[in-house]
Amino acid sequence: MWEPQLVSHCSKVPRNVNLEKLRSGYLFPEISRHEAEHLQENPDASLIRLGIGDTTHPIPDTITLAMAEHVRGLSTIQGYRGYGAEQGNMALRKAIAGKIYQDMGIKADEILYRTEHNATFLAYSCFWDPMLPWLYKTHLSLVIVGQAGELEEETGKYGNIIYMNCGPENNFFPNLWAIPRTDVIFFCSPNNPTGHAASRQQLKQLVEFAKANGSIIVYDSAYAGYIRDGSPRSIFEIPGAKEVAIEISSFSKFAGFTGVRLGWTVVPEELKYSNGFPVIKDLNRIVCTCFNGASSIAQAGGLACLSTDGYQALCNVIDYYMENAKILVDGFKSLDLNVYGGKNAPYIWVHFPGLNSWDVFSDFLKKTNIVTVPGRGFGPAGEENIRISAFGQREHILEASRRLKLYL
Amino acid sequence: MWEPQLVSHCSKVPRNVNLEKLRSGYLFPEISRHEAEHLQENPDASLIRLGIGDTTHPIPDTITLAMAEHVRGLSTIQGYRGYGAEQGNMALRKAIAGKIYQDMGIKADEILYRTEHNATFLAYSCFWDPMLPWLYKTHLSLVIVGQAGELEEETGKYGNIIYMNCGPENNFFPNLWAIPRTDVIFFCSPNNPTGHAASRQQLKQLVEFAKANGSIIVYDSAYAGYIRDGSPRSIFEIPGAKEVAIEISSFSKFAGFTGVRLGWTVVPEELKYSNGFPVIKDLNRIVCTCFNGASSIAQAGGLACLSTDGYQALCNVIDYYMENAKILVDGFKSLDLNVYGGKNAPYIWVHFPGLNSWDVFSDFLKKTNIVTVPGRGFGPAGEENIRISAFGQREHILEASRRLKLYL
Repeated sequence: MWEPQLVSHCSKVPRNVNLEKLRSGYLFPEISRHEAEHLQENPDASLIRLGIGDTTHPIPDTITLAMAEHVRGLSTIQGYRGYGAEQGNMALRKAIAGKIYQDMGIKADEILYRTEHNATFLAYSCFWDPMLPWLYKTHLSLVIVGQAGELEEETGKYGNIIYMNCGPENNFFPNLWAIPRTDVIFFCSPNNPTGHAASRQQLKQLVEFAKANGSIIVYDSAYAGYIRDGSPRSIFEIPGAKEVAIEISSFSKFAGFTGVRLGWTVVPEELKYSNGFPVIKDLNRIVCTCFNGASSIAQAGGLACLSTDGYQALCNVIDYYMENAKILVDGFKSLDLNVYGGKNAPYIWVHFPGLNSWDVFSDFLKKTNIVTVPGRGFGPAGEENIRISAFGQREHILEASRRLKLYL
Repeated sequence: MWEPQLVSHCSKVPRNVNLEKLRSGYLFPEISRHEAEHLQENPDASLIRLGIGDTTHPIPDTITLAMAEHVRGLSTIQGYRGYGAEQGNMALRKAIAGKIYQDMGIKADEILYRTEHNATFLAYSCFWDPMLPWLYKTHLSLVIVGQAGELEEETGKYGNIIYMNCGPENNFFPNLWAIPRTDVIFFCSPNNPTGHAASRQQLKQLVEFAKANGSIIVYDSAYAGYIRDGSPRSIFEIPGAKEVAIEISSFSKFAGFTGVRLGWTVVPEELKYSNGFPVIKDLNRIVCTCFNGASSIAQAGGLACLSTDGYQALCNVIDYYMENAKILVDGFKSLDLNVYGGKNAPYIWVHFPGLNSWDVFSDFLKKTNIVTVPGRGFGPAGEENIRISAFGQREHILEASRRLKLYL
């Protein structure tokens, strides 16, 4: 008896062509796959994960107590709150303005809270031609919304993006005057992955360059709390920056909120489109229309982070991570390797001239059971490097340092 | 002495032309403005807010206890967690599959968690021509990403959107066969604002229509927990829906999580683009690349909502709101008004033939001190109606009902 072949139904909706331009999986799932394979071949291996750069230290009590109190209040008539202000509670906006941006003249109204990824929020506006120094997720978000242009298979670069190489050869700062104009300049300091914090002089150049070109800087300061050497913790420490920059930051690495989810964006009133319209008005509208604000619980935690006690406790946690970084930097240096970062950021960047970064990654994993991140994962300019995260319990960091010296 | 005039710097970045197509402010801030004006003129007015449709009842203890326990655990080495899975914890994905979609064959892998607004997540993919029956925020998100087309000033409609009018004249379900094909059909049941839950027969028609046209249904079931009359609580109760539908839902109205922020999206493996590629693969990639998942605290709460105790406690809260709805419906009916909704949703929709909905809104506010929502705020088809929310403390609902009878 003849049976009709089962042909499954397909919609007539075409796939977003931009998604077809994405290559390979997202970096960290890819690393996890390598990890899993390694563990399958070496079931007894004791892995030390210095890869993804996730915070590991418990959140100080004073902060989780504030969140728990808020949460339990939601079970009372007096304490129950539903929708909050889409831009974040005014108390929290004021606390950021006062504590993080004191003396920079940033107003509470210029601060918008978020949970979603930085890049998503901005890519959502999708009105800019970008230039960026390897901001991994920003990169991919721009591809998806069609702003990145065509992929050049050979180089792995996208046609509408200007790549600014930052390495030891230029003190991790691009030669701006050799770069064509773009609408937007993405800049991250302290930098992920290199761990370099831009100096005041470098940032002055960046602001001048943006002003001369009429560009907007999107400045990612997620690691500002790790700066130790007096480099600026905000682009708004630079005179004139308010007319040319948006700053994007987060409680993730500052307060161990990678799972709690809370971030903010500063858009000064002085920042204007070419027609004179203030950018803050549009981004405020986008926040109110397209996002419904961050969790009220996370916001209660954010407020506690900025209290005197909370802030001090967080500084102690950051000191702990930075001591980790020092141990790792010393370990690599003792091997005569080219080591960067680790002084103003929890990331260490190690250069292996002429080597493929995935090969170095695999070699590390095989010989030391330490998980790192291949530099290539951050973009074409990351090749020949690996990134090591200083997040971790001290005992693991010390053990990692021991293994480095023993097996490399 | 001549002084140069201060000319402020403008960037050379053009404004996103799509943002120029948005008209007037977002609905609820607009309503708040009217409220504030009314209070200024009538400082002693005792307002009853049945506008925005925000939950008001405390969250059951069992759920906030689970969240508080999770939060406090973040202060311990054993309990600390950083980044979670971008799609949500597997335990929570399994709980939704088992509890909300039992007998519908939805797999945990087909469920993606979110915090951001439904529409944002989908508009981010920006690859669809839409058709929608007044989904307010979806509407505006599509405008911003440029999918809505040009605004026709006269009608307030956008050129690339087909509007499906749903009212008492068609039992709140469009005449599908009179509608041109679109890539995507946005459909919300129980409907916000009309409070109508589509019948099984109506949803079968919808699925057939989508299948015949090769369209994708984006089905918003945020109010499914309020259905009382046996109407489907999910599009996936309809045979064949997996090949044509995405379902979008939320803990906001089901669990009073409007401030806690937690939602989910179901994308069946069977749903495919015209080229046969599964849609879930792209949306999974977008979630992993562009969003970093929902707050782990909210997720701990979500899991508690789906426990036996938590679920029962939430059903009791919903019963409370639905008793509110009954009181309000009875109040309006006693005035001989055309009243809809309130049976399967916490919204009541009242028709005032020939009247301007903002006028009705203002009249209500002036005469009764009750805040409602003018139907026009939900789109052109909402004119002549107002929406009343049944969220509120019982005493306020009873007082509102009393005022209706007294002043109208």
